Amino acid sequence: MKLKIAVLAGDGIGPEVTHEATNILRAVAEFGGHEFTFVEGLIGGVAITATGGPLPQETIDTALAADAVLLGAVGDSKYGSLPPDKRPEAGLLQIRQILGGFANLRPSIAYPALANNSPLRPEITKGADILFVRELLGGLYFGIPRWWNRDTPVHCEEAINTMRYTKPEVERVAKVAFELASKRKKKVTSVDKANVLEVSQLWRAVVTEVAKSYPDVTLEHQLVDSMAMHLMNTPRSFDVVLTENLFGDILSDESGVITGSLGMLPSATIGGAVNLYEPVHGSAPDIAGTGKANPLGAILTAAMVLRHSAGLDAEADAVEKAVTTVLEAGHRTADIARNTDPAHAVVTTTQMGKLVLEALTQA
Amino acid sequence: MKLKIAVLAGDGIGPEVTHEATNILRAVAEFGGHEFTFVEGLIGGVAITATGGPLPQETIDTALAADAVLLGAVGDSKYGSLPPDKRPEAGLLQIRQILGGFANLRPSIAYPALANNSPLRPEITKGADILFVRELLGGLYFGIPRWWNRDTPVHCEEAINTMRYTKPEVERVAKVAFELASKRKKKVTSVDKANVLEVSQLWRAVVTEVAKSYPDVTLEHQLVDSMAMHLMNTPRSFDVVLTENLFGDILSDESGVITGSLGMLPSATIGGAVNLYEPVHGSAPDIAGTGKANPLGAILTAAMVLRHSAGLDAEADAVEKAVTTVLEAGHRTADIARNTDPAHAVVTTTQMGKLVLEALTQA
Ligand SMILES: CC(C)[C@H](C(=O)O)[C@@H](O)C(=O)O
Ligand SMILES: CC(C)[C@H](C(=O)O)[C@@H](O)C(=O)O
Repeated sequence: MKLKIAVLAGDGIGPEVTHEATNILRAVAEFGGHEFTFVEGLIGGVAITATGGPLPQETIDTALAADAVLLGAVGDSKYGSLPPDKRPEAGLLQIRQILGGFANLRPSIAYPALANNSPLRPEITKGADILFVRELLGGLYFGIPRWWNRDTPVHCEEAINTMRYTKPEVERVAKVAFELASKRKKKVTSVDKANVLEVSQLWRAVVTEVAKSYPDVTLEHQLVDSMAMHLMNTPRSFDVVLTENLFGDILSDESGVITGSLGMLPSATIGGAVNLYEPVHGSAPDIAGTGKANPLGAILTAAMVLRHSAGLDAEADAVEKAVTTVLEAGHRTADIARNTDPAHAVVTTTQMGKLVLEALTQA
Repeated sequence: MKLKIAVLAGDGIGPEVTHEATNILRAVAEFGGHEFTFVEGLIGGVAITATGGPLPQETIDTALAADAVLLGAVGDSKYGSLPPDKRPEAGLLQIRQILGGFANLRPSIAYPALANNSPLRPEITKGADILFVRELLGGLYFGIPRWWNRDTPVHCEEAINTMRYTKPEVERVAKVAFELASKRKKKVTSVDKANVLEVSQLWRAVVTEVAKSYPDVTLEHQLVDSMAMHLMNTPRSFDVVLTENLFGDILSDESGVITGSLGMLPSATIGGAVNLYEPVHGSAPDIAGTGKANPLGAILTAAMVLRHSAGLDAEADAVEKAVTTVLEAGHRTADIARNTDPAHAVVTTTQMGKLVLEALTQA
């Protein structure tokens, strides 16, 4: 098969980890006789430096012409004082909006080999396998009006953001959650704050309605505050967790502790013109170029490309299996080396990438 | 000294746990020769049943005439289908607004005796002592416009909530956080989502400015998503955590796992006409009347009444000490009995109250 992948490596550790991810994709293509082509584009801080803005038109064109977009990471503290719409992150939010994917899938899995890396007790995390379905194009991230009247007399200074959802927006992401749950453990936990927010009341009503078309799938509603607690107390009791944009941002990062490191977490955004793939971790400028970055989040993101854009499920499984094999052999990047047996070697970003490649080609 | 306390026991387990808390306050008054008077008022579901609304005028009058308001819990699934402004929770939000307290203090402490009750490893929680300062009168909870146009043609259905903060609102709560930090470990962690939200950019700018008046206190900023993770990975590294309303709701519940049970967590809301005291836990209607409710959250809330409304710091310390003593002796209510040694007796709400009272009077 043929697949054109736009690679937007971005800032900080983005290029390093994306490099390892594309290596894996190249190997899969070569082995299976597929034709994967890669086209690069600028986004984030590097785009600001090169072109003055976080998302040049050329990048937009490249992305829209591709079959899948693989993003590294975006963000650079250098630009921290700019207003939100001028910052590196604005490029990320814009590309999300332009590509149109509204369902951001974020798996949070407890790998047995990493059980000692979680701050949670092993008996709590054991067997946990949660799939967050985070709505990615609505809520406070994009709601209008939004402003900060910075230049008014000081005591009138005020800022506003708008949390807004329409019924069709909730419906389409809820359907994705139920579809996915029907192929998993058949449970959807929908998160809201319906005891306070009108938006959450709409959310809950629509999700409840969508659930009627999926009689095999159990639906439960949780308030976002309780959910933040339940995720830590009983992570095993969840299957698919459906959230609006900001709640998903917070809860999926929190659930990173189930896996043991943000550096391990992949994501895929589906439902739009072109799917967007990005590891959950940020650009981590402090460790960029030191070889400390964990490429496994990006590599597992590549596996999601294979599954959701190339229809190569067996190959996706094989990449995930290779990651598990490498972890079980005891190899660790710095972020996941915390509590490991001293016999376990700490490897660099590149070494980790090579190890996964070896495990993959040997299998 | 004299103290008039309005007791709004509310729904579910509210009355049971509040009863134990007032018992403690009575004992402190008797022992110290203080005159504490208690006046009861209706709020929440019980108020809806009795008067048709969640916050009768009489309750408002009682609360405003008091020196402190002690609230139990509010919420009843019976009213779950009502719109937000008619639900039991609306009574809580209204009383918060009427009393005017804007700084909600929520300690999250790792009690050594409960180390095995947390899903977090003991070496992670050991020594953790976090004080959340949650802004309680702004943000999405109260922002206007807010609506859900339920009755429009179905594809136009939409809902909106508004996250809004003014500079003075951020300033006053930030000052409380810095004042408190200056008497503790001298660190404030301010939480926002400044890479996306204008409101958070205002928040960050104002907090940074307030910090200049507290050169002894270190300020750090964290994004809410990362913070949800850091709180679990390194709870010991935080001292005072300053948040807007919704972020504080989510993160303080999450941090309940540091202590081991929501049933252990007290809160005090200061800065307004009358201070408002409420345990963090909800009304838990499923266990109401079964003797399973943990009164320690309410009792520790009573200690906060002594500290913040009566100026009786030594007495507050003594109540907190009594709670520790009882826990160290191995007594547990159902919620915290999870991983305890089988030798530890599971006690009822009333028994737990009595045990604390005994420990207090013996000391
Ligand atoms: C960088 C930021 C804009 C982004 C978000 O909040 O969506 C990130 O935290 C994420 O979760 O992908
Ligand atoms: C009951 C609810 C309105 C309330 C809140 O969200 O503030 C509760 O969760 C809390 O944290 O006190």
